[in-house]
Amino acid sequence: MELALAARLPQAHLAPTRLHEAMRYSVLGGGKRVRPALLFATARTLGLTEDEVEAAACAIELVHVYSLVHDDLPSMDDDDLRRGRPTCHKAYDEATALLVGDALQPLAFQLLARDPALRAASATRLRLINLLSEAIGTFGMTGGQAIDIVSQGMQLDIAQVEDMHARKTGAVIRASVLMAAECVPGLEARRYAGLERFATAIGLAFQIQDDLLDVIGDPSALGKATGADRERAKSTHPTVIGIAASQERVRLLHGQALEALVPFGNHAAPLRSLADWLLSRHY
Amino acid sequence: MELALAARLPQAHLAPTRLHEAMRYSVLGGGKRVRPALLFATARTLGLTEDEVEAAACAIELVHVYSLVHDDLPSMDDDDLRRGRPTCHKAYDEATALLVGDALQPLAFQLLARDPALRAASATRLRLINLLSEAIGTFGMTGGQAIDIVSQGMQLDIAQVEDMHARKTGAVIRASVLMAAECVPGLEARRYAGLERFATAIGLAFQIQDDLLDVIGDPSALGKATGADRERAKSTHPTVIGIAASQERVRLLHGQALEALVPFGNHAAPLRSLADWLLSRHY
Repeated sequence: MELALAARLPQAHLAPTRLHEAMRYSVLGGGKRVRPALLFATARTLGLTEDEVEAAACAIELVHVYSLVHDDLPSMDDDDLRRGRPTCHKAYDEATALLVGDALQPLAFQLLARDPALRAASATRLRLINLLSEAIGTFGMTGGQAIDIVSQGMQLDIAQVEDMHARKTGAVIRASVLMAAECVPGLEARRYAGLERFATAIGLAFQIQDDLLDVIGDPSALGKATGADRERAKSTHPTVIGIAASQERVRLLHGQALEALVPFGNHAAPLRSLADWLLSRHY
Repeated sequence: MELALAARLPQAHLAPTRLHEAMRYSVLGGGKRVRPALLFATARTLGLTEDEVEAAACAIELVHVYSLVHDDLPSMDDDDLRRGRPTCHKAYDEATALLVGDALQPLAFQLLARDPALRAASATRLRLINLLSEAIGTFGMTGGQAIDIVSQGMQLDIAQVEDMHARKTGAVIRASVLMAAECVPGLEARRYAGLERFATAIGLAFQIQDDLLDVIGDPSALGKATGADRERAKSTHPTVIGIAASQERVRLLHGQALEALVPFGNHAAPLRSLADWLLSRHY
């Protein structure tokens, strides 16, 4: 992924150099690459090679990084540290961080529209663009962020928390899985629906695990401070239903995710082991 | 355009309501709609109806508005007034304004990917997405913004100013014209190149006229304060080569733009009158 992303980002010696440097700093700064991993594992489950979907995996990671860079801005979460390093607006400045996010979006769509490594017909490319644009629009990620901001300091019930998470994190996780599925023209509707169920369960479980780590995780393993949600009076699973019930919810969703993979048999081994790792991780 | 845009924006009563309201406030707040007008006039010049390209015109206006909303933020130009009304972050808040811009981008790409009113084959839609993503990326609008920020307080020469403007304003103006041209499959390369020359000249002339109005314009007609460029020590044509030489440059570019339209004969009347208006406007 590092090489695939590096090759697709504008080179740092080209003007505007500071912006290009900041984009590379933000994107190439490590990270778990969860969304590309989900896309690749889905591709392998469906008999595609990673090469065929590498450009789509890059597109999804670029929009994820854009969302992190904007979330870290002072007017949003005001975070100084990300992946163990200064956030983009700390390493550069606020205006540059704003533009980094603004520029990563069109780059992602450009990859889907024309990256030669993506082996997909025009109609498939358009469906990928559709999936991504929906996932990051107001009924997806950006909408989830908006709800998150408005509801800080308010006491949400657990259904409201889950709706917020379905948009904020769930939508892009879902798109990661479904973009791989779209690359298999003529995939049976039943199999597509199975992957959608898997992605929905895993997306929510992943977010709950993230929120649990904010309470019980180790800052040095996470590369960022913990306790941020409580400090910002955010409603999360641990703050609304407690740690034990949140862990139980992760276990339940994990089971649902694995069940959705049953029809894929042994082919789904990559997705299964990824799900196991995502929901037991400590960072 | 108001109706076309209103129909394509998320409805304000849907969640997240505050974000959707702020998007509608920003997009439907008037404005000259210069880029849609250029797209429509090009379409008419080429024998297309406005209906056929309306969705593309909306896409280009959505990205233009996103760029205004982000430019107005405190970390960028820190403007309080836009189109005679409070800017988005003043009417709402900074986080919401950030998300408004972030959400308008994917909506624009979504229109190009699937709006049913756009009569275009999949391959054409992909070319439109390509044109738009290039125009707003780091070699286009976002790159121009980055150069603008870095160079404030520095004395640019006129070639550097024109390079900055070619990216910052020119790229989206050019895309407005070329997106209409892409909607005519099999358009002769010579005619496409003529439209490209027209768009390049008009884009630069439009920006110089804008910068002239910041010096000699009437704030009440403009709906915003004048003198902002001088205050921010921005390098523009008037500040670098003076008012008279800037006006002469507009006249020269205007002539080049009209010359590029000669092969289109009377069909180009809509583009000609639009060019005449754009370069003689007082607001």
